[in-house]
Amino acid sequence: MNDFWKEFPIIQQQLNETCELIKHQVKIRNKEIEAALIELTYSGGKLLRPAFFFLFAQIGDEQKQDHKQLIKIAASIEILHMATLIHDDIIDDSPLRRGAVTLQSRYGKDIAVYTGDLLFTEFFELLAETMNGSDFLHTNASAMKRLLLGELDQMHTRYKKDMTISDYLRSINGKTAELFSLSCLEGAHFGHACAEVQRLAKRIGRHIGIAFQVYDDILDYTADVKTLKKPVLEDLAQGVYTLPLIFAMQKAPERFAVYLEKGATITDVQAAETAKLVHELDGVNDAKTFAKRVTEKALDDIKKLPECLGKEQLTLLTEMLLQRSY
Amino acid sequence: MNDFWKEFPIIQQQLNETCELIKHQVKIRNKEIEAALIELTYSGGKLLRPAFFFLFAQIGDEQKQDHKQLIKIAASIEILHMATLIHDDIIDDSPLRRGAVTLQSRYGKDIAVYTGDLLFTEFFELLAETMNGSDFLHTNASAMKRLLLGELDQMHTRYKKDMTISDYLRSINGKTAELFSLSCLEGAHFGHACAEVQRLAKRIGRHIGIAFQVYDDILDYTADVKTLKKPVLEDLAQGVYTLPLIFAMQKAPERFAVYLEKGATITDVQAAETAKLVHELDGVNDAKTFAKRVTEKALDDIKKLPECLGKEQLTLLTEMLLQRSY
Repeated sequence: MNDFWKEFPIIQQQLNETCELIKHQVKIRNKEIEAALIELTYSGGKLLRPAFFFLFAQIGDEQKQDHKQLIKIAASIEILHMATLIHDDIIDDSPLRRGAVTLQSRYGKDIAVYTGDLLFTEFFELLAETMNGSDFLHTNASAMKRLLLGELDQMHTRYKKDMTISDYLRSINGKTAELFSLSCLEGAHFGHACAEVQRLAKRIGRHIGIAFQVYDDILDYTADVKTLKKPVLEDLAQGVYTLPLIFAMQKAPERFAVYLEKGATITDVQAAETAKLVHELDGVNDAKTFAKRVTEKALDDIKKLPECLGKEQLTLLTEMLLQRSY
Repeated sequence: MNDFWKEFPIIQQQLNETCELIKHQVKIRNKEIEAALIELTYSGGKLLRPAFFFLFAQIGDEQKQDHKQLIKIAASIEILHMATLIHDDIIDDSPLRRGAVTLQSRYGKDIAVYTGDLLFTEFFELLAETMNGSDFLHTNASAMKRLLLGELDQMHTRYKKDMTISDYLRSINGKTAELFSLSCLEGAHFGHACAEVQRLAKRIGRHIGIAFQVYDDILDYTADVKTLKKPVLEDLAQGVYTLPLIFAMQKAPERFAVYLEKGATITDVQAAETAKLVHELDGVNDAKTFAKRVTEKALDDIKKLPECLGKEQLTLLTEMLLQRSY
């Protein structure tokens, strides 16, 4: 666990327990894979989704809560996230994830495919333990499906020269916002918050997820390898055309045509020139403005939540996360 | 649907409905993947697992059965099977499956990874619809996990020069027998058969699964490309050392050493020489004897089932399947 959570001691403690449970859950007879999974769990991911889950649980009714159940559900969320990360890295052929060598580049795609699959089963097992008989079983199945459809959408629109904002939003709504939304909703629901809080939680999570992804995509155009812990302009080179590029392209499509028609054969120099053009045409600033507006929608909804420590911390976290270093 | 089931008209009808449901279930906005999945559903797989499921359901109490629920559970089983096939083909880099080009060789590994994942979510959705609140949710999660651990075991023992019968059995117990066992058990359970029939169903399924896999592995050493619809000696070349080879190796390890130390660099000629040696040392016959013994265990248990059409057809199918063309 990193020190991102030092100002949130309750959450930090709950996230530690979640990690411990994940570590226990991924114990299998193949020790190599077990070690890789434990490393992934502890390798500096912020565990944001479980954190939002616990913050919303805090807004609920502590008297009615089942602590062990909450930890298990938080673990199920992070495990689903880990599974999709591992499979994404196969698609992207990413060498690095969270600053560490990815599972597929260390062990090969074969192990990565099955390890991701194994995590899907762990996810499923935890749900069978915590919500058998609840409608949330359906909710989880649908969320997992939308998540995957979002990934497929992203793959389907790779190198799409006329990529639109609506293509982009559809993809990130599935691949990122869905799980943030589920995390918040499940926190509120299994934390025994009232129906109105649950309704808000779902929407807050969706907005946080969208803003988070937009900021993450902005980083591809602004950060350097050292701070981001992953290669920069990777999305662009891999044909994942994100919001800064789309905004800029809409202003002068003809200036981008020469670069985008290169598709996967774009060189580092050409990618750098494309990025320069994105900045010049205010693509990054426009994307920031967009993310800021979405963040404000989330903060407005957060204001409507009942007063409590959870609400304060949720406000703080959302501001920290979505207003960091830009 | 092929004409394998022409002597089993009731089952044939139920399998047709199962395929229709799968076709409906895999409707997604990505039409390319949808088409690939529908092709896989109809491409000549025998749907053995759903068939065993329905045969055991027939032994149950028809009055109490929910027809739609049974079709959905049968579909969940086949969908889980399809998901693992697609991911296996990535690992194996298989060009052919069921006589058709595999999903990964036609669309690439990226689409294959997500398509398999998508099927896991369909599996999960169907379970949420049919057995929410039932202990069988856990049973399914555990089965899926054992299935994957079996695949991982197989991968872990690739090119293992001292592969043992126990290594082999552990792997096929997970990767094949688990799902046959689950299919039979679920058929008996959701068909409202008594507890004793359910207990037998589980064991019969396991034995049928083991025998089926051993015979399938034998085919790698006996069939030609035309009848098997897939390349022969593929397992051997890919380091999947199966029962015929293991039996033969145990008799004269020194004669195999020269071939097996080649690992993945074994040539077609050397693979053919290895196969010849397997035959010479009775590896194929020994494996057949083994499979026959396991089949007899299944048939003995089938005899203990209550008299009914389902029992007759189950006997017939087991004999047809496990005593075909060897």
